[in-house]
Amino acid sequence: MSTIQDVARHAGVSVSTVSNVLNGRAERMRKETLERVQSAIRELKFQPNRLAQQLKTGQTSLLGLLVPSMTNPMYGFMAREIEKFAQEMGGLRLLIGSTYRDREKESAFFDDLLAHGVRRVIVISSLADERHFETAVGNGMSVVSYDRGATPGRRSRVAHVMPDNQLAAQLATRHLIEHGHARLAFTTVAGLTMSRSAKIQGFTAAAEHARVHGEVLDGGPLNEYGETVIAQVGRATAHQIARMRERPTGVVALNDLMAMGLMAGLRECGLAVPQDVSVVGIDGMPVAGLTNPALTTVCLPVREMAQAMVARALNRERGRKDVVFAPSLLRRESVAAPPTRQRSARVPRAEELLS
Amino acid sequence: MSTIQDVARHAGVSVSTVSNVLNGRAERMRKETLERVQSAIRELKFQPNRLAQQLKTGQTSLLGLLVPSMTNPMYGFMAREIEKFAQEMGGLRLLIGSTYRDREKESAFFDDLLAHGVRRVIVISSLADERHFETAVGNGMSVVSYDRGATPGRRSRVAHVMPDNQLAAQLATRHLIEHGHARLAFTTVAGLTMSRSAKIQGFTAAAEHARVHGEVLDGGPLNEYGETVIAQVGRATAHQIARMRERPTGVVALNDLMAMGLMAGLRECGLAVPQDVSVVGIDGMPVAGLTNPALTTVCLPVREMAQAMVARALNRERGRKDVVFAPSLLRRESVAAPPTRQRSARVPRAEELLS
Repeated sequence: MSTIQDVARHAGVSVSTVSNVLNGRAERMRKETLERVQSAIRELKFQPNRLAQQLKTGQTSLLGLLVPSMTNPMYGFMAREIEKFAQEMGGLRLLIGSTYRDREKESAFFDDLLAHGVRRVIVISSLADERHFETAVGNGMSVVSYDRGATPGRRSRVAHVMPDNQLAAQLATRHLIEHGHARLAFTTVAGLTMSRSAKIQGFTAAAEHARVHGEVLDGGPLNEYGETVIAQVGRATAHQIARMRERPTGVVALNDLMAMGLMAGLRECGLAVPQDVSVVGIDGMPVAGLTNPALTTVCLPVREMAQAMVARALNRERGRKDVVFAPSLLRRESVAAPPTRQRSARVPRAEELLS
Repeated sequence: MSTIQDVARHAGVSVSTVSNVLNGRAERMRKETLERVQSAIRELKFQPNRLAQQLKTGQTSLLGLLVPSMTNPMYGFMAREIEKFAQEMGGLRLLIGSTYRDREKESAFFDDLLAHGVRRVIVISSLADERHFETAVGNGMSVVSYDRGATPGRRSRVAHVMPDNQLAAQLATRHLIEHGHARLAFTTVAGLTMSRSAKIQGFTAAAEHARVHGEVLDGGPLNEYGETVIAQVGRATAHQIARMRERPTGVVALNDLMAMGLMAGLRECGLAVPQDVSVVGIDGMPVAGLTNPALTTVCLPVREMAQAMVARALNRERGRKDVVFAPSLLRRESVAAPPTRQRSARVPRAEELLS
């Protein structure tokens, strides 16, 4: 059985340095030092009694991560990047949970984090009300909220990291306008989160600025699985579009997964992308590049945002200002000039649809 | 500040029942009772001192989950189902990690689980060597290994839950043969995990039984990101197929994500799915149903497997026998009869490719 002294000797560092690593206080440590200590711990098969440590320090080397649903590949992609930086920057493991954007599930997760001694959490949520986050900060937690800014006019002790969602929708909308589209739609789901509102504002502003017709199509509520079914809402919205007398020729989707559902649904109705309808997504998740046609989308800088979120969760960056990242357009194949005349569509009956 | 006695009174149960819930021993409890206790805890804002409890019981209400990579949407899908059953059956939260199928990362995660007092773990791994799992069981852990059986001839204290991978590949291969295909390929990546071997066996057996040509195409190694890049390997393999003088007309892909990459790559070479090449996946992940054409695939019963894994992690099912689940073919649009003559393909140069 090796001791903390053995580890310190083996790594050529002080006992307090090893203790800092064990207690998740490696933020300001040089990467080489951290790695030397970690490999000494491994080689000597040192088993720290973390539970006793936690009682003493009140901290665990865990990072809480709340996502709307792990079934949306965008959140798996983000979780992977957050995990990478959490390991590299603080030796932290992820305690993960899906909230399906449900307030109660979110609160229950916070209670469990507190009970487990987890004092750092990143929340991908976008629920309008952040009071329970402030409570958590009051209880000593370091809370990073993704995809929404602080409530205007209120002082917040929660750190906010987000993409510029309004700009993201503007870039997508302008791209369609530049291709000559004059009848545009933004497809979304029921329920106004802050990020959804920002995207709708960006879409509307870009359409108004160019004096083209822009309407918001709400595909209805998500069920208990939240984001999981957003592709199905996209598919249903495509059927709605196919039935419209004056059909939009260019569509901006709330996110990539909805865009993928939209493309599948349009195809079911005999409408070709981009010949009949152009589609632009928002996210830039890897799997959306494999569609046919490959989805043109607005990419969010996931790696940079993940790094910023982990830095703030570790209190390495102490600024209270919202950190906003600029997205960028990724041109692929799903946008072309609008059709010269509207092709007739045929919406399939439910029993004709593939699962 | 409410006490455990208050919670028991509020829920109309004994203190020891509440204690069982708090200590993750709710396995044999009726669902109604569990819910009543949980809602009493919530209503009274009872904050158990989990850390002190953990020291006493040596158990946390956490379930470790190791996946190859959260960026493969199949593992996000599985994680969501495992999370659901972990919550419902044992009130457990997930401590998650990506291993990229790297032995050292896997061991490091086990060390961290032990150090955090986590005594239950589900590993989606398929690495050939399970000795470190046996060590973990020796240390008091309950280990469930997914996607591989016990090493033949060795007694194992690790529980094994898996789909019948050999049957999965057979179903896919037979489906192509039934459509008249006589030149088949199975596309995989470098490195023989047990599940990959089983799939190759199933493919080869089905091809030999029907006396058709079947070859295994190895797209080469994955990089440090493991499964994350499997779609890119699929895309490169499609370019390899396009260059072949006698091209296979039907392809079984290692998994859905590789199949999606294959379809994208074939299209880049001017080959149509299914007119020139038919493609079948294995997994049945939701997002693969949104491809164009919609991917025909062999579905794994993810929900049932997730339930079985959680039950075994909770030691509710104590059988030592491998639990094998049967997959089923999901016919969609990516399989048709083989072409009457081979169309010429053109493999694009790297700089012509979309990102």
